Amino acid sequence: MELVYKGKTKDVYLDENGQTVLYFKDDMTGKDGVFDPGENQVGLKVEGSGKAGLKMTSFFFEKLNSADIPTHYVDSDVEKREMRVKKINIFGEGLEVICRYKAVGSFIRRYSSYIEEGAELPAYVEVTLKDDEKQDPFITKDALEALNILTADEYSEIADLTVKISEVVKEELAQKGLDLYDIKLEFGRDQDTGEVLLIDEISGGNMRVYKDGENIEPLKIVDYLFDNK
Amino acid sequence: MELVYKGKTKDVYLDENGQTVLYFKDDMTGKDGVFDPGENQVGLKVEGSGKAGLKMTSFFFEKLNSADIPTHYVDSDVEKREMRVKKINIFGEGLEVICRYKAVGSFIRRYSSYIEEGAELPAYVEVTLKDDEKQDPFITKDALEALNILTADEYSEIADLTVKISEVVKEELAQKGLDLYDIKLEFGRDQDTGEVLLIDEISGGNMRVYKDGENIEPLKIVDYLFDNK
Repeated sequence: MELVYKGKTKDVYLDENGQTVLYFKDDMTGKDGVFDPGENQVGLKVEGSGKAGLKMTSFFFEKLNSADIPTHYVDSDVEKREMRVKKINIFGEGLEVICRYKAVGSFIRRYSSYIEEGAELPAYVEVTLKDDEKQDPFITKDALEALNILTADEYSEIADLTVKISEVVKEELAQKGLDLYDIKLEFGRDQDTGEVLLIDEISGGNMRVYKDGENIEPLKIVDYLFDNK
Repeated sequence: MELVYKGKTKDVYLDENGQTVLYFKDDMTGKDGVFDPGENQVGLKVEGSGKAGLKMTSFFFEKLNSADIPTHYVDSDVEKREMRVKKINIFGEGLEVICRYKAVGSFIRRYSSYIEEGAELPAYVEVTLKDDEKQDPFITKDALEALNILTADEYSEIADLTVKISEVVKEELAQKGLDLYDIKLEFGRDQDTGEVLLIDEISGGNMRVYKDGENIEPLKIVDYLFDNK
């Protein structure tokens, strides 16, 4: 396979048929060896995290595809840590769409004058630009329009999909006694059909999950989800 | 008069009739002696800036009141640097509403991957929370709703007023050959009628103004406006 792009937690390849394959690495975002989904850099290497991330991603992407929520997922080989995906175009240089159910992380750092840490939020959606140098600046719907990154309709479509997808993940975790506090999603446009698709991954590395008020590490989420716990 | 509140560039008094009076000081926001409307601290003291700020504010607030755009302005005494205003309640702990016609300042610092410095923006409106400690964090319409600071309707009303007011200022400056790049406004709610009002001031200290691509200092804007130039 031909290496096309080296990412922080995944590499992108083209296979012999020209299909796009994502390879899940054992790298996680964080700082000083501590996992943080809000971090921009690779902070730690954890053996088994690539496989666990792909197992969870495959589980959710298959679930979403069956529920007619469009994703870029085609199929996966968890042992080989490979996921085949549709070819997409990203919006601008990439967006991160966050859905928040509890006020934690950067939300509480910004708005603690108005809300208690851990207070409920109503599936609140916000967007940041993927821009490591500028530390993923926060951007409004109006600025996304002004900068020709998204139209107002595209914004609404992505925000609606974000809430739908987050609800699926939240309910699935709730069945295992876990609380989803927030989740970070990415979207792209199908190169063939133009359809807006969920891309990237849904793994422990993209979300903050708690159980009885205690934070659950990304790799433990997989254990709960597949009843290895 | 009784001092009620000491602000960065204005103090608030109650006069003998219980009316609210703003006293315009000679302090300007900036850093290291250089004026910057985006700064949160008093950076310089300039003799005459209080009077100039009030002269410009009175001019625009009277113009807006006659155009049925509601402001908190009652009347002013420029020599005494006093402005009498209606009693208002602020939204949350105060908001700053920015209208941008050109990509400069914090906008370009955030989004320079997508737009050239100085490029045109279509009266783009964004909101920050007044919170010195957190350096006035940027906030979306949805977060303002989630934190019960504004309803969706109040947001729309304030955004519409912001564009209307900014257009008045922009046109007035254009008649003197000046280009308005951005402007920062504040709003409150009339304690008696509940009406949303423009509050605070419209002075050189709240805006970035250029002439033939050269930045014009706040105090010089007043000179151009009143043909002392």
